[in-house]
Amino acid sequence: MTDRPPDQDDQATSPGLTVPVPLGDRSYAIRIVSGDPIGFGPFARSSLDASRAGRGCRVALVVTDANVAALASRHAEALAGQGIAAEVAAVPPGEGSKSLDQAAVLLDRLIAMKADRHAAVVAVGGGVVGDLAGFVAATYARGVPLLMAPTTLLAQVDSSVGGKVAVNRPAAKNIVGAFHQPVGVWIDTDSLESLPPRELRCGMAEVVKYGVILDASFFDEVERTADAMLALEPGVVRRVVARCCELKAEVVSQDEREQTGLRAVLNFGHTIGHAIEAVAGYGGPFQHGEAVSAGMVAEARLAERLGWIDDSLADRLSNLLRLLGLPTSAPGLDPDALLDAMTLDKKNRGGRIRFVLPRRLGLVELTDAPTEADLRVVLGELTSPAV
Amino acid sequence: MTDRPPDQDDQATSPGLTVPVPLGDRSYAIRIVSGDPIGFGPFARSSLDASRAGRGCRVALVVTDANVAALASRHAEALAGQGIAAEVAAVPPGEGSKSLDQAAVLLDRLIAMKADRHAAVVAVGGGVVGDLAGFVAATYARGVPLLMAPTTLLAQVDSSVGGKVAVNRPAAKNIVGAFHQPVGVWIDTDSLESLPPRELRCGMAEVVKYGVILDASFFDEVERTADAMLALEPGVVRRVVARCCELKAEVVSQDEREQTGLRAVLNFGHTIGHAIEAVAGYGGPFQHGEAVSAGMVAEARLAERLGWIDDSLADRLSNLLRLLGLPTSAPGLDPDALLDAMTLDKKNRGGRIRFVLPRRLGLVELTDAPTEADLRVVLGELTSPAV
Repeated sequence: MTDRPPDQDDQATSPGLTVPVPLGDRSYAIRIVSGDPIGFGPFARSSLDASRAGRGCRVALVVTDANVAALASRHAEALAGQGIAAEVAAVPPGEGSKSLDQAAVLLDRLIAMKADRHAAVVAVGGGVVGDLAGFVAATYARGVPLLMAPTTLLAQVDSSVGGKVAVNRPAAKNIVGAFHQPVGVWIDTDSLESLPPRELRCGMAEVVKYGVILDASFFDEVERTADAMLALEPGVVRRVVARCCELKAEVVSQDEREQTGLRAVLNFGHTIGHAIEAVAGYGGPFQHGEAVSAGMVAEARLAERLGWIDDSLADRLSNLLRLLGLPTSAPGLDPDALLDAMTLDKKNRGGRIRFVLPRRLGLVELTDAPTEADLRVVLGELTSPAV
Repeated sequence: MTDRPPDQDDQATSPGLTVPVPLGDRSYAIRIVSGDPIGFGPFARSSLDASRAGRGCRVALVVTDANVAALASRHAEALAGQGIAAEVAAVPPGEGSKSLDQAAVLLDRLIAMKADRHAAVVAVGGGVVGDLAGFVAATYARGVPLLMAPTTLLAQVDSSVGGKVAVNRPAAKNIVGAFHQPVGVWIDTDSLESLPPRELRCGMAEVVKYGVILDASFFDEVERTADAMLALEPGVVRRVVARCCELKAEVVSQDEREQTGLRAVLNFGHTIGHAIEAVAGYGGPFQHGEAVSAGMVAEARLAERLGWIDDSLADRLSNLLRLLGLPTSAPGLDPDALLDAMTLDKKNRGGRIRFVLPRRLGLVELTDAPTEADLRVVLGELTSPAV
């Protein structure tokens, strides 16, 4: 990759961090800045030029939603400054836009622009916009360059690394998709200022997850900086987001297409978390990050029952999540319904439910060791009205 | 790849040829037989087992169209004999089925079958079925194993090698797609018996193309065996189909994702051929193979004008195509309209029209050397009512 930005805050221009994502000839850089809308232009150009397909790109479709359309327009202007004619397409906000119908609208837009295989798709928004625009980029002309500018904390620390793009069908989420790596990811932490506080907290659940599964000292750091993070202190936010991206990039670069099982470590908290979402109802009382928060506590308790960790770790995790304003239980849900939902999880083999559980802070393991009895105790605690 | 069938006719079981397609960990085998519906079962199982994703496959969706639904049912039974529960989904015959809407129907069918990422999609039919089923396989759960059983000569010699899958949008053909290699291709030449003669002839145009672009001695062989081929003599058909697959596999294995330009050699006859199709109207008097046939003759004449070849090669090509019942001209079409259509071709750079032209029999080169004057002379001959 040519013209890679420096690897640490460079006060000469605007402060920022760069995280390289090493994936052979699909390698790319994540640039993390605070309040630098103009910098997107040169970053986009150098990212495109560093990729085989993006070299010579002169046309781009900027996909966004109504909530961040103003930012998307600024990004389109920044592209124009680099000789890239960009049109903005705003989709309705919300999960409903992750559909084949909406993808068809965007694909037809690219056709109308006479886009060839060197045209870029740029995603400016949260996870929905990233997944939808990514699917369009993966399938238009059998794949065109994708640039991502994630604007939510969750999208910044999670979906901007990994290359998973998808749309939903009515009967199944994320079932139609591809692995399609971006050529570059631009994260401006200023976009978090306008994020609803609840969405910021949901992103923090995934931040905490990275500490538990991969990096004990990062967990310490999140504990120490929780208040600064919630107050969106730019230097802290950049550092936290960059570390999450680094940690996810390490996992993804070893298991890009989810074939070795390594990538499963990212699912800590998600086996029970997904069940909470499914039972409480999507779009219901638990947003994804909230369900994962309660799921992580329950799964830590499960590890405790196996004797893998002692209760101090589960308590510490629970306290941090509470400090961040996240739920640590799911009172009132039906444990049997949760159990049923879990038996459908994709990680399962041969009828046993599989979990990613902590061995110690910073290390997790995929296991089917928990018995149904263990699980019933933990689910009982999770759903108890007393908690 | 384990359990690869032998590389030459093996009379111990049923006669057949195997063509390996070497693509690293996406390598697969093409097996060419005549009248062996039962053999598909073991071939499918060994092909699935040899692929990472297909190992342990127990569920399959067999995609077909009404014309070959009976054959598809036999393939489904053969899969059942290998412990793979297969359902058959028949789409309406014709290009109209290559749509996102039809893909959605099949994707929902897979969801209803509770298919996971190890489930297989099996395409039994011509190019439309292969492209549609391939797109579904490429996108369901971010990619599931694809088995192909092409039943038309064109699909057997062309779309069964290369991994290009796609659906159409109203304003552009093949614009939504992916590169998704099959895990195995099963060609039973018996399926050609029920093919309309015109479709057989269209397939022969692509057969002739392989001789011109890559293999002079194969061109000789096609000349010698043209009658036997049209009479569907099984040994001859197997040999011709296998050689085409081998030749295309050599090209594709060096340029899997159309990045180096090498794969462009496959477009001989197609620059002018596509223009003929577009101007005459899709579904009009020229089927794809017929347009390519006339296009090859015109492009050979263009090479003649450049002094690359003498007139004996263009004459020889023209005679062979005529012998096969294929058109060698497009009388009555408007040369200006053809010229306009060509300026939209994807191979063009910087305003010059690019062609793949013969240097000699068996060797072609991508070039923008022809002037508009050259082209006008050749298009004049092509469209002259006198020819």
